[in-house]
Amino acid sequence: MLKYPDAQVISLGIGDTTEPIPEVITSSMAKRSYALSTVEGYSGYGAEQGEKQLRAAIAKTYYENLGIEEDDVFVSDGAKSDISRLQVLFGSKVTMAVQDPSYPAYVDSSVILGQTGQFQKDVEKYGNIEYMKCTPENGFFPDLSATCRTDIIFFCSPNNPTGYAASREQLTRLVEFAKENGSIIVYDSAYAMYVSDDSPRSIFEIPGAKEVAIEVSSFSKYAGFTGVRLGWTAIPKELLYSDGFPVAKDFNRIVCTCFNGASNIAQAGGLACVSPEGIKAMHEVVGFYKENSDIIVETFNSLGFKVYGGKNAPYVWIHFPGQSSWDVFSEILEKTHVVTTPGSGFGPGGEGFIRVSAFGHRENVLEACRRFKQLYK
Amino acid sequence: MLKYPDAQVISLGIGDTTEPIPEVITSSMAKRSYALSTVEGYSGYGAEQGEKQLRAAIAKTYYENLGIEEDDVFVSDGAKSDISRLQVLFGSKVTMAVQDPSYPAYVDSSVILGQTGQFQKDVEKYGNIEYMKCTPENGFFPDLSATCRTDIIFFCSPNNPTGYAASREQLTRLVEFAKENGSIIVYDSAYAMYVSDDSPRSIFEIPGAKEVAIEVSSFSKYAGFTGVRLGWTAIPKELLYSDGFPVAKDFNRIVCTCFNGASNIAQAGGLACVSPEGIKAMHEVVGFYKENSDIIVETFNSLGFKVYGGKNAPYVWIHFPGQSSWDVFSEILEKTHVVTTPGSGFGPGGEGFIRVSAFGHRENVLEACRRFKQLYK
Repeated sequence: MLKYPDAQVISLGIGDTTEPIPEVITSSMAKRSYALSTVEGYSGYGAEQGEKQLRAAIAKTYYENLGIEEDDVFVSDGAKSDISRLQVLFGSKVTMAVQDPSYPAYVDSSVILGQTGQFQKDVEKYGNIEYMKCTPENGFFPDLSATCRTDIIFFCSPNNPTGYAASREQLTRLVEFAKENGSIIVYDSAYAMYVSDDSPRSIFEIPGAKEVAIEVSSFSKYAGFTGVRLGWTAIPKELLYSDGFPVAKDFNRIVCTCFNGASNIAQAGGLACVSPEGIKAMHEVVGFYKENSDIIVETFNSLGFKVYGGKNAPYVWIHFPGQSSWDVFSEILEKTHVVTTPGSGFGPGGEGFIRVSAFGHRENVLEACRRFKQLYK
Repeated sequence: MLKYPDAQVISLGIGDTTEPIPEVITSSMAKRSYALSTVEGYSGYGAEQGEKQLRAAIAKTYYENLGIEEDDVFVSDGAKSDISRLQVLFGSKVTMAVQDPSYPAYVDSSVILGQTGQFQKDVEKYGNIEYMKCTPENGFFPDLSATCRTDIIFFCSPNNPTGYAASREQLTRLVEFAKENGSIIVYDSAYAMYVSDDSPRSIFEIPGAKEVAIEVSSFSKYAGFTGVRLGWTAIPKELLYSDGFPVAKDFNRIVCTCFNGASNIAQAGGLACVSPEGIKAMHEVVGFYKENSDIIVETFNSLGFKVYGGKNAPYVWIHFPGQSSWDVFSEILEKTHVVTTPGSGFGPGGEGFIRVSAFGHRENVLEACRRFKQLYK
C-alpha cells in the first residue's frame, strides 16, 4: 500500500468473514442487551460451561443421535480460546501430532505450553511434533502407518488450509489409530457446515470416536461470528484417561478456573443461530461463501492449475509445483494487488501452495478472479 | 433448600452483581448488534488486543497522567481469563506469592499450571506458594520483611475478600520490595472504583511501579458486566524481563495465539462505559452497592462484631474469633437462610471470618440484615 497508494487491494488472505450477520440473530442479541437493563432480564455470572438451553440446543442441532448430550457441550468464546484451554489441560509433557499443513494455532499454542522442543531450521519443524503430511500424493490424508504415536492428535476436517474433508473410511482409520495408541484426537470441525458431499460433519459420526475424541467448533464461519466470539467444545463422558478418570471433568475444572463463560449476549446470538430460522439463515451465509469458492475454483481450473479444496470448505488450495509459496504470494500481490496466504505459513507441507479464501464480498471475489485471469492468461 | 423448601434464601455469597446495566451502556451494545446486520456496520475479527478506540479510552479514563498508553492496554473477556493467560505467560517454573486470604483464582490457576507443589493438609497450604498473611493484627497488609522472594506477587487491592485497600505508603513499600527482588506484581484492581478514601486506584500511581507491575481490571463490578464479560490488563513498556525483553511483547504473543479478542458487542458496551454518561452511570451502580456495604457494616457493628472492609470495597469481612468459618457459615445459613462465604475458602488466613457480599437488591440486603439482628441480638 505504501508502494501503490492508489491500488485497490483485495484481501482473500486471512479467513475473516465479510457478510452481515442475519437479522434473526442480531435482533436476539440486541434484545438480550436491552433486557440487561431491566430487573427481570438482568443476569450476572452465567455457568462457566455455558447456558443450559444453548448447550442443549447445540447438542440437538449438531449431535442428534450421536450420543453427545447437553452436559458434554462446553460453550466457549471461540475455537482458538478453547484450543489453548485444551493445551493447558494437556500440560507441557504431552506429545502431539498435526496435519501438515494445518491451522497454525495448534502448533503455536503447543510451542507456548512448551511441548514442542526446538525449531529445526533445516526442516522447518519443531523437534517433538509429529507432522502428518497431507499432500495431493496421499489425497490429503496422512499415511498413518508412517505416523509415530503421540498423546494428542490435532485433526481439522474440512481442513484449513487444504479444504479437504476426510471421508468416513479415513476417519474410521484415524479413530482406530488413536484407539490403538491411546491417543486423544482434538477434532476441529469449524468448517463442518461447508461440507457438500457425504463426508462426516462430526468425528462422533464414527463408531468408537466418543472414546478417543474431543470436538472443537465455532459459529464464526457459519454466522459471521468472528467478531462476536462464540464456539463450543464437545467432550464425551466416554473419553477417559488411562486411569479411568473422565477428561471432561478435568476440562470442566479448567473452564471454571480459567474462564467465566462466553458473553451472555453472544450466547443469546448462539441460541438464535440454532433456531430453525437461524439454521436456515446460516445455510444461506455458508451458501454464499461456497458460491465464492466455486468462482475461485473455476477460475484457477480454467487457467490450468491443479486446484484443491473449495468443495467442502471456504478455502481453495492451489498448487504451484516447484515454486516458493512466498514468491507466488508476492508475485500475486505485486501484480494483482490481491492478498492470498502462502501455503508454507501452515507448515512445511504447504510449501508450493497458496490458499485463497472464499470469504469476501462477491464483487471483490469476481474482481480478484478477473485479475488472476489477467496475470496467468 | 431441600431441608426448608419454603425458605426465602438470600445469597450474599459469591460476588455476583444484581442490578440492571445502565441503559446508556446496553443501548450501545444493542446498536452494535443491529449494525452487524448491515454491510457498513459489520465487523469480523478485531484486533486480539482490543479495539483501538476502547484501548485509548481505557488508558485515558483510568491511567491519565500515569504514563499508561493505548498500546499498553489489552482488552480481555474479564480478569479471570487474563489471570489465567498471565499464568500461561509465566509458565510452570515460576514461584508465586499471594495475599492470604485472597480471591482463589490466583492459587487455582497456579495449581493448574503446576507451579505450586503439593497441598500440605496440616497447614492448608501449597508447598511452593508464599502466603502473605493479611489479618487485623497487621492491618491487612503483609509483613514484607517476613515474606520470601518469589518471581510473581499477586496483589488484589481493594482486596477480595477482606475489603481492605492498601495505602499509598504500603504500595510504595510493595513496589520497592518487588524491585529489590526482581519480582513482577500482578495487581488486581477490579474493585478500584469502590475506593472512597485516598487509597490509590491503580498501582501505577506509585512511582516506579511501571517497572515491576501488571494491572488486571474489569468492568464486571462497575457496570454489572459479570455476564457480558469485559476487562483489561495494562502492561507498561517499562516492565522488562531481566534480559531486557519487554513482558508486554510476550503477553501480546499469548493474546494473539490463545485468544481472539473480546466480543465486539461487549467492546461497544465498554466504550459506552467510559463515555462521560457511562462513567456517571457506573458511579451510580457502584454507589448503590456501597450503600449496601454501609448497611451491612452498620448491622454487624451494632451487634458488637469486629467488622472490616466495606468502606473501599463491596465486601464486608466479619471476625468470629476462635470459631470455624464453616461453622459460622452453616449456622447463619441454617438460622437465617442467608448465604455468606466462609473465610477459609480464601486461604488459611481467612479462618475465623465470613465474607458478606454487598451485591444484592436493596430489599434483600435489608431483609438479610434484619435476620442477622434476629440471630445475634
